[in-house]
Amino acid sequence: MQTRMNLPLTPARFKRHAAQIFGRKQGIICGETRFTYQEFDQRCNRFSAALLQLGVQPGDRIAFLSPNCHRLLEAYYAVPQIGAILLPLNVRLTLAELMPILHDASPRLLFYDSEYAAEAEEMTHAGLPIEHFICLDHPCPSGSSLKTYEELLGAAPPRSFDWTALDENSVAELFYTSGTTAQPKGVMLSHRSLYLHAFYVAHARKISDADAEAYTIPLFHVNSWGSPHTLTLSGARHVILRKFDPAALLNLIERERITRLQMVPSMAIALINQPEIEQCDLASVKEVMIGGAPANITLMRQVEEKFSWAVVAGGYGLTETSPVVSIAYLKEHLKNESPDEQRRRKSTAGYAIGGVEVRLAALDGADVPADGSTQGELMIRGDTLMDGYRNQPEETARALQDGWLRTGDLATLDDEGYILIVDRLKDMVLSGGENVATAEVERVICQHPAVFECAVIAVPDERWGEAPKALVALRPSYNATEDEIIAHCRKQLAGFKIPKSVEFRETLPKGGTGKILKRLLREPYWAGHQRQVH
Amino acid sequence: MQTRMNLPLTPARFKRHAAQIFGRKQGIICGETRFTYQEFDQRCNRFSAALLQLGVQPGDRIAFLSPNCHRLLEAYYAVPQIGAILLPLNVRLTLAELMPILHDASPRLLFYDSEYAAEAEEMTHAGLPIEHFICLDHPCPSGSSLKTYEELLGAAPPRSFDWTALDENSVAELFYTSGTTAQPKGVMLSHRSLYLHAFYVAHARKISDADAEAYTIPLFHVNSWGSPHTLTLSGARHVILRKFDPAALLNLIERERITRLQMVPSMAIALINQPEIEQCDLASVKEVMIGGAPANITLMRQVEEKFSWAVVAGGYGLTETSPVVSIAYLKEHLKNESPDEQRRRKSTAGYAIGGVEVRLAALDGADVPADGSTQGELMIRGDTLMDGYRNQPEETARALQDGWLRTGDLATLDDEGYILIVDRLKDMVLSGGENVATAEVERVICQHPAVFECAVIAVPDERWGEAPKALVALRPSYNATEDEIIAHCRKQLAGFKIPKSVEFRETLPKGGTGKILKRLLREPYWAGHQRQVH
Repeated sequence: MQTRMNLPLTPARFKRHAAQIFGRKQGIICGETRFTYQEFDQRCNRFSAALLQLGVQPGDRIAFLSPNCHRLLEAYYAVPQIGAILLPLNVRLTLAELMPILHDASPRLLFYDSEYAAEAEEMTHAGLPIEHFICLDHPCPSGSSLKTYEELLGAAPPRSFDWTALDENSVAELFYTSGTTAQPKGVMLSHRSLYLHAFYVAHARKISDADAEAYTIPLFHVNSWGSPHTLTLSGARHVILRKFDPAALLNLIERERITRLQMVPSMAIALINQPEIEQCDLASVKEVMIGGAPANITLMRQVEEKFSWAVVAGGYGLTETSPVVSIAYLKEHLKNESPDEQRRRKSTAGYAIGGVEVRLAALDGADVPADGSTQGELMIRGDTLMDGYRNQPEETARALQDGWLRTGDLATLDDEGYILIVDRLKDMVLSGGENVATAEVERVICQHPAVFECAVIAVPDERWGEAPKALVALRPSYNATEDEIIAHCRKQLAGFKIPKSVEFRETLPKGGTGKILKRLLREPYWAGHQRQVH
Repeated sequence: MQTRMNLPLTPARFKRHAAQIFGRKQGIICGETRFTYQEFDQRCNRFSAALLQLGVQPGDRIAFLSPNCHRLLEAYYAVPQIGAILLPLNVRLTLAELMPILHDASPRLLFYDSEYAAEAEEMTHAGLPIEHFICLDHPCPSGSSLKTYEELLGAAPPRSFDWTALDENSVAELFYTSGTTAQPKGVMLSHRSLYLHAFYVAHARKISDADAEAYTIPLFHVNSWGSPHTLTLSGARHVILRKFDPAALLNLIERERITRLQMVPSMAIALINQPEIEQCDLASVKEVMIGGAPANITLMRQVEEKFSWAVVAGGYGLTETSPVVSIAYLKEHLKNESPDEQRRRKSTAGYAIGGVEVRLAALDGADVPADGSTQGELMIRGDTLMDGYRNQPEETARALQDGWLRTGDLATLDDEGYILIVDRLKDMVLSGGENVATAEVERVICQHPAVFECAVIAVPDERWGEAPKALVALRPSYNATEDEIIAHCRKQLAGFKIPKSVEFRETLPKGGTGKILKRLLREPYWAGHQRQVH
């Protein structure tokens, strides 16, 4: 009897809707460059046409090494609308860190900002299967003989693309996350997941065409909170900041009448301590979301003082969940609770947004009561879960069990569904919104000739929430200083992974199986804190 | 490589989410009865269990003959969560009109409010395949020996239901619409359509847990605008009004701090003319939506005057589209247009909300330009389209073509995507070779200060084939003559559009949604003619 075919759920529809309904509106602002949604649509379509001319096929990975820029935003639509997979690379990684990612993802093309021309140049000699390296800047400062992005667009025919032919269950975006193992994991997100995530977040945050959001978080993080999709879907304005800079952001807030800000705690700290904030008209800002790492109550209160017209809220998410799981809004029916209780709720990770379900599991997988005190591993179910880790079926099977994602975060749930993250089961440091796999840092440190064994742990850090700290036992009759260990790390690791401090120990405590007891090592640093993580 | 199974998109998830996240909140208010979302969830689950005990199978139709009531709202979740199909009947229909619907739908059970006990009694003798007729009231006034709804719930075991086993493409709700043909058509809406519709509408209207919406429109109309789903999804409060009554509604607005109102134009007229409105505190109302029939500028302005804190907007939808297609919000970037232009845009049917796509088609199906003047049939594409008309594959094939729904409405699209419905394709006057859009003439007549409501119809005319005729109901204590109305039209309309005659009536006959029944009005003038048009 059914005669209607389902239409694919794909973010490509957001761009089409914006071009049709908000086509004449200047929706994309990037420095002095401004595009209407119609111009944006045409640029994306030309880019798609150029990719086809370069031989790109459905399922091909297209990599980007770029800070925030309207060209990277265009890729969010141009690449998936032809069935290819967008791979935004973390520009903070060293070449050594990027290589295993590029080997795993084997992208067909790599687009780079000239700031990373040296890295791109080195990659061309690395035996990677990348067919073309294309400079995003125009003109390309390196004077390469290859066409630049804008030249490709200029040469491509204007045309439109039929989104109804896309498979909603195919992969649209690929983000690499360090996770707990030394080997980075490629998180595969489908069209359907990204489409539904955008509606879930836009609904929860009440985003509309009256909004303008500043891109403070790098787009190569999925925890840029899906803004390329939520804003386009809502006909809101994308205000792109090349890199986070508090003074530049304050200027943008005034100039573009920014209504929404999303920051990791370290950005929020930098912003509220920027002297110019006192003279800045912040009245347009309706909401400040602080995520990536839990914000503490003091920081939240300081932000509330500066942005007195805005709702200030924390949130929680993972690359594996597209990312938003929960937001710590104060519910309407709790507004007559005591101020202390309100603050307590607001300083949690929040409650699950519509479309997302959470529960707590004991070690044996059984449900743990939502009583505000019993701890369990936070489990997530919903449409916004990743399809899996690329090429890593075992890691995927460990993460996705019976349709639930194991977050590796230990949490409590209160009587209203507010999630409090109390500890991390996975051995990671969450520093300034970046995941640091301690195993990776430990492997590098252990390569130092003087090191016998080491453990990297998370310690509280005022600016970054957590910072990695190395505890090192040296080989007998060897010597090394803190500076030497740090300098050794700097050669191989991105800045955010390098231990902020190194302490030397005679020996490290171990359990029965010889495993280093990190919990014991961590405890003294977290004494006086309510949680063992930030 | 893919290891994650998709979860079904089903409204059953809204109830589960509300029970988990807003469980302790009093979310359902019906007269003096108040339920928390947890209590609501438990009642729905008991109802589902009772339906299973009565032998209900997936795909079975369960009919309701009831005004608005929390028990009908419970059915919106209890019936589909076991895979059965909810069939709310229009209580305004006569028994003779209901019979073909019941024969077509062949429900297994029928639940009735005691107000309709006589109809239910007659149905038991009509040879219908209905197994049980169950009274919703408790105790049942008719003293039937059958169990009532509450007795069924009391006897059913408490349990929960696994929504992950539902098929998102199965039918969840069935609504009968008269359409333009004599035979009523059963519109089949799937779990997936209703789920996505709820997110699309909740996002477009920015509905949150801070909202309380009054049920002014009968729930048996799909154009109760999906409130059973949008409000539950958002953790908002359902405030149920048994039947529309302007004085009772004003009381509820104050008592429950209503934030959202949805009305058809006739309800809005009644409400703003209710004397008590002058003493009523309306400050809680943030939005008044007027839909179901086009609102004229005068009415919109009068509502805006009374609800000066609220956004007042029209909208457009069909049973076949779940129903919302478009809402006439003023876009942010148009707020510097002239007041006249803003009013013009706001008095249209609005622009397509996210997830919905519209276009205009010429008679041959070709696209018609969106230039604000060229007319075409409004075509709709999106996830919220019906699956088809039950048992009517030919009508379905006529309505759904290449994935687009033919609305049968003639419209223009302006440069910003605002839709202006100019007429029903079948409700036009063809006068002397010229098309007269009756909606346009009606809009002009309604601007006359003495006019309460009017309908323009085609009547036979010796000279012109057809001529437009106006049937007018005046405001209490206002006067106007035929010559005055015609002179008023002459100021704004081309000669061929001006009614050749005006008749005054006490009131105009209306259907369930408040839509004026033009067919009834037209009939006497065409008696003796073979067709209703020339």
